[in-house]
Amino acid sequence: MKVNGQTWEYEHRPVIIGSSSIVGPEEGEGPLAEDFDFIYDNLEINEKTWEKGERRLLEDAARKALELAGIQEEQLQFYVGGDLMNQIISSSFAARQMGVPYLGVFGACSTSMESLAVASLLVDSGAARYAMAGTASHNCTVEKQFRYPTEYGSQKPPYAQYTVTGAGCSVVTNQGKGPRVTHATIGKVMDLGVKDPFNMGTAMAPAAADTISAHLKDTGRTPDYYDLIVTGDLASVGHPITRELLLQEGIAMDQTNFMDCGLMIYDRDKQKYALAGGSGCGCSAVVTYGHILKQMNSGKLQKVLVVATGALLSPISYQQGESIPCIAHAVSLEMGG
Amino acid sequence: MKVNGQTWEYEHRPVIIGSSSIVGPEEGEGPLAEDFDFIYDNLEINEKTWEKGERRLLEDAARKALELAGIQEEQLQFYVGGDLMNQIISSSFAARQMGVPYLGVFGACSTSMESLAVASLLVDSGAARYAMAGTASHNCTVEKQFRYPTEYGSQKPPYAQYTVTGAGCSVVTNQGKGPRVTHATIGKVMDLGVKDPFNMGTAMAPAAADTISAHLKDTGRTPDYYDLIVTGDLASVGHPITRELLLQEGIAMDQTNFMDCGLMIYDRDKQKYALAGGSGCGCSAVVTYGHILKQMNSGKLQKVLVVATGALLSPISYQQGESIPCIAHAVSLEMGG
Repeated sequence: MKVNGQTWEYEHRPVIIGSSSIVGPEEGEGPLAEDFDFIYDNLEINEKTWEKGERRLLEDAARKALELAGIQEEQLQFYVGGDLMNQIISSSFAARQMGVPYLGVFGACSTSMESLAVASLLVDSGAARYAMAGTASHNCTVEKQFRYPTEYGSQKPPYAQYTVTGAGCSVVTNQGKGPRVTHATIGKVMDLGVKDPFNMGTAMAPAAADTISAHLKDTGRTPDYYDLIVTGDLASVGHPITRELLLQEGIAMDQTNFMDCGLMIYDRDKQKYALAGGSGCGCSAVVTYGHILKQMNSGKLQKVLVVATGALLSPISYQQGESIPCIAHAVSLEMGG
Repeated sequence: MKVNGQTWEYEHRPVIIGSSSIVGPEEGEGPLAEDFDFIYDNLEINEKTWEKGERRLLEDAARKALELAGIQEEQLQFYVGGDLMNQIISSSFAARQMGVPYLGVFGACSTSMESLAVASLLVDSGAARYAMAGTASHNCTVEKQFRYPTEYGSQKPPYAQYTVTGAGCSVVTNQGKGPRVTHATIGKVMDLGVKDPFNMGTAMAPAAADTISAHLKDTGRTPDYYDLIVTGDLASVGHPITRELLLQEGIAMDQTNFMDCGLMIYDRDKQKYALAGGSGCGCSAVVTYGHILKQMNSGKLQKVLVVATGALLSPISYQQGESIPCIAHAVSLEMGG
């Protein structure tokens, strides 16, 4: 393991031998539907409450990732996970179900790549042979917790985003076939003073730009090193702002290969409810573990940088007049030994 | 780095070169007062809201730990932290203040040792030269979030615990003088069906017993290897249950050297409000980073196992009829190279 600036270079390049994505009905109507392992046809996810539904998504995803990795539950040594729920209950209850040593993490929607970076660190350092990273979000649990009771059906501004209902998990180890985790860039908390909790894309854009810039500087790479650089959930408002912020730093991103999971998961012309695009830690998780890794395994993509973004506010922090601190964690994935 | 079962053995035995503890007025009336770096004389911590007060405790503790470690803020590479607030806002806002790459973690009151275990892993694996671990809790922020509005002044049962107002941080690196982090045992989620959110000690006891038992098994040690084995916040109800559970497994704990941070921080005869004893992630943090490390540095203790316990419930999980999943993470500290 080496560190340069805020970027870790994994010595043994841990490999993702299995990953899973389980989603709700709305994600199943989107353009990536074919890439998901299972699509629930109801937002309750066959449970009595949305919170239990979110947990079920995560438990399903964990089981599926183990199955696709071809290992038994007993072989898994550590589970690294978190989610958006207060006290990350979805992850902790899923960890209870799994019965495996558990490290809870929290980076809001950046949890997907924070957990993958830490799970890969465990494997790379010899602290684990098999480690799992995972996260989940549910549209209704998040809306009721962060904004208004879902039953209000309150109208949202057009720049608001739509929380993805979905869970994704990955199994990381030192040997095998699959995309390799080569670097992780751990983000700093950025806060440019945005206070509107509906305007997450604008709030998170500086964190994404800062982490991408740091990653390129620390690794000596230029954007064209990657076939794809994909942000987590900046959506239609935040993603162009990140592009503009990077340009101001002299970093010109490609017009076609700089994308955003929040813009990829829904067809915003048909799925009007998605507004500016997807969000939630399930967003970057299911797009990465469902769509992107499949593209890598089939040879369509060789080198990808996933930059998961997170808004670290709580309802209490914004009720007390605080602006929204944000963070982004990036993980570099490459095919080949 | 080696792993055996659920226990990491740190190859380079990272050293804690500086640690801090900042507390509120009630902890300042307790028997460990002399060991704390600073005692606020008001529960507001000189701020307008309790939440801002909790954050201030953590920011103070971070600054003090850097000062005592003798390093500059720019030298610090990563901050690993978490707290009990929804979306761990105290840690995220403190990380914004510090401007350092940040890994948010959550293990409820076990966060103190989860963050130390992960920070030590960063240092041991070469992912960081200097890493900080930290956590905080505040009596009033926690009571209002998990139980009733603080202003109600509602009566609590005598087996309830009293959340510590305090923050603790430590700076870990590979060279220098101080207690060394030799092992960490990462806990599994244990849940024996306790549903009473006032009865945390009973809920957490099985997790503490399970982690202690796993630690001894994984390291081949017996309890008398340690001068002190200290649990996080089991208090007067949970601590004897853990002792009994261990005895049932054939592990007899010493009568004097098996203690609990929640029982050490208050004088329960004089400080009646403490009820069964202290709790909160600040409890094990300030007792460890204030009291225990001072005892180690002064030669009174050589080998200590800190077993921080956490209850992973949220108000929503228990309102939906769930029992309380718990976890304990243990870190072994030793003086000498």
